[in-house]
Amino acid sequence: MALDLAEHPHRRYNALTGEWVLVSPHRAKRPWQGQQEEVEKETRPAYDPTCYLCPGNERAGGEKNPPYSQTFVFNNDFGALQESTPTGSFEKSGLLKAESERGVCKVICFSPRHDLTLPDMEVADIRKVVDLWQHEYEELGKLDFINYVQIFENKGIIMGCSNPHPHGQIWAQSSIPVEPAKELMQQQNYFEANNRSLLNDYLAIELEEKKRIVVENEHFVALVPFWAVWPFETMIVSKRHFGNLSQMSEEEKDAYADCIKRLTVVYDKVFNVSFPYSAGIHQTPTDGQEHPAWHFHMHFYPPLLRSATVKKFMVGYEMLGNPQRDITPETAADRLRSLV
Amino acid sequence: MALDLAEHPHRRYNALTGEWVLVSPHRAKRPWQGQQEEVEKETRPAYDPTCYLCPGNERAGGEKNPPYSQTFVFNNDFGALQESTPTGSFEKSGLLKAESERGVCKVICFSPRHDLTLPDMEVADIRKVVDLWQHEYEELGKLDFINYVQIFENKGIIMGCSNPHPHGQIWAQSSIPVEPAKELMQQQNYFEANNRSLLNDYLAIELEEKKRIVVENEHFVALVPFWAVWPFETMIVSKRHFGNLSQMSEEEKDAYADCIKRLTVVYDKVFNVSFPYSAGIHQTPTDGQEHPAWHFHMHFYPPLLRSATVKKFMVGYEMLGNPQRDITPETAADRLRSLV
Ligand SMILES: O=P(O)(O)O[C@H]1O[C@H](CO)[C@@H](O)[C@H](O)[C@H]1O
Ligand SMILES: O=P(O)(O)O[C@H]1O[C@H](CO)[C@@H](O)[C@H](O)[C@H]1O
Repeated sequence: MALDLAEHPHRRYNALTGEWVLVSPHRAKRPWQGQQEEVEKETRPAYDPTCYLCPGNERAGGEKNPPYSQTFVFNNDFGALQESTPTGSFEKSGLLKAESERGVCKVICFSPRHDLTLPDMEVADIRKVVDLWQHEYEELGKLDFINYVQIFENKGIIMGCSNPHPHGQIWAQSSIPVEPAKELMQQQNYFEANNRSLLNDYLAIELEEKKRIVVENEHFVALVPFWAVWPFETMIVSKRHFGNLSQMSEEEKDAYADCIKRLTVVYDKVFNVSFPYSAGIHQTPTDGQEHPAWHFHMHFYPPLLRSATVKKFMVGYEMLGNPQRDITPETAADRLRSLV
Repeated sequence: MALDLAEHPHRRYNALTGEWVLVSPHRAKRPWQGQQEEVEKETRPAYDPTCYLCPGNERAGGEKNPPYSQTFVFNNDFGALQESTPTGSFEKSGLLKAESERGVCKVICFSPRHDLTLPDMEVADIRKVVDLWQHEYEELGKLDFINYVQIFENKGIIMGCSNPHPHGQIWAQSSIPVEPAKELMQQQNYFEANNRSLLNDYLAIELEEKKRIVVENEHFVALVPFWAVWPFETMIVSKRHFGNLSQMSEEEKDAYADCIKRLTVVYDKVFNVSFPYSAGIHQTPTDGQEHPAWHFHMHFYPPLLRSATVKKFMVGYEMLGNPQRDITPETAADRLRSLV
């Protein structure tokens, strides 16, 4: 009997991180009686006087938001990173090791409208978010103590988001965090060996096979990676090899906004609910080096598995062993593609 | 100003995995308005006729449980791994890579009593669980296609556990999963350089500093690792350096059961609720090699942060960057120790 990736348990290699995921296709039909998630109420007002992100309202720190009409960015009133952190390190026998971490945490409101999410917004308005991401990436990246800028969004209460006003965050810091450090290493190794970017060659395979592609436009592709961990995980990859938002043409920025719109619209159709996820951009570190191997991409990690209320739990085996999934990336891509 | 680990944002190095965690001590007092978890109803009958794990009841596959009076183990009716999986692999341009994974998934009932959890059980009865873990580790490890045995427990609906009957699982497989593979590498490197086990030397520091110890008996220590990720994460470490359950003396097995009991009793006091967690044993692979560097230990990853209903979310930044925590491991250990 030959190995059939649609039938038999197997592990897949994540070429971007060098790690593995266990795939158990036969298990997708297992009954479920566990925790049910709350479904978020769908009707929100366009303006909520109690929301600390709406235009003109007061925030926890006492400051007042301007009457903004597009996007709005401010320093997180409870940032996990601070600019004022003294540099220093701690070490004992090589076993206890700590280093101070300077940084900046920001919040970005995508829209003044309290009742929208990215898929509800016009492409032209998402483009304004892309512009602001670029601006922040550049401005933060210029600071001498910022070597990496993580732009992300937690969407939905299930993803720890405590305010439904459409917003994302930026955590910018001195060191390169663990996940991008893995990707940097994998991409560098590949680039040195092949003189092309890893995602360039990967994308060529995907565009030929077409099995895992969800949406595509002239400059971007959204696909379910061969090594996806979350049930409906996707990645937006640029067709051209460049490393960060500053290197995108105007046309590419429009196409990127269009790709985000089309992908998130599909997501909302999967279970007929505003689809929760954490998403974020992986782009070149701002440590003053070139990083020619880096290929711009954005990850979407949505937790829902079976319905609007049943998510995938990354628990015991996943925490102690490695991630595990039931439906295959190919099945997930079929499902998403059928909703385009 | 000097770096103060109790005050300033910093990253800590995990000596067991080689990865880092971001610690933001100043952020512990942030207000919270997000998702509230359901608290599990506490009263359960000693026997539940609808529970597929209770003695004498029928399981989903149609099989009947024996009228067991201590522990009970059976093959998972919906295992993520299967013994019958054909061997084989798949590869395309080095970028798409998959390998078949043979394995066995089992379920272990800790007690016939539907209404108990580990902290409610007598030490002598937990000892029976330890004996069964040892037996399964040995029997599964003997199979030529099993090179690693992961024993774990998901406790609480918040941890994806769909049945409150006290039980754990075993996933045994051909390859060494990602997390133990990291620990193997780190432990081997340390052992080659120092000729002592990494956890041996780490434990010596902890026993001297006493800052992160929660409970201790003659043979085991439960502590909050210096590099803990989850708010109240702990690790049980054997005082003597050995690699797996088969190498424990009778006395050590009793002491291990005692340590589990004392630690989980403390956990239940933190928020006055049956404390959810995923826990699991990391011991030597069963691949026929010696692994003299490996030092037996067990991880506890509990998600609760602030109350019985507010957990830590490992989402956007954590998924895309690296794990982040607010309260320091030292504060968490103080809190736990005060409840002993
Ligand atoms: O097999 P169970 O208990 O139904 O499933 C639970 O534990 C497994 C192993 O950690 C996870 O893969 C599942 O997501 C979780 O719901
Ligand atoms: O800053 P927020 O949105 O309140 O917090 C949320 O996102 C952060 C970054 O992913 C996480 O550390 C928190 O656990 C989560 O609740």
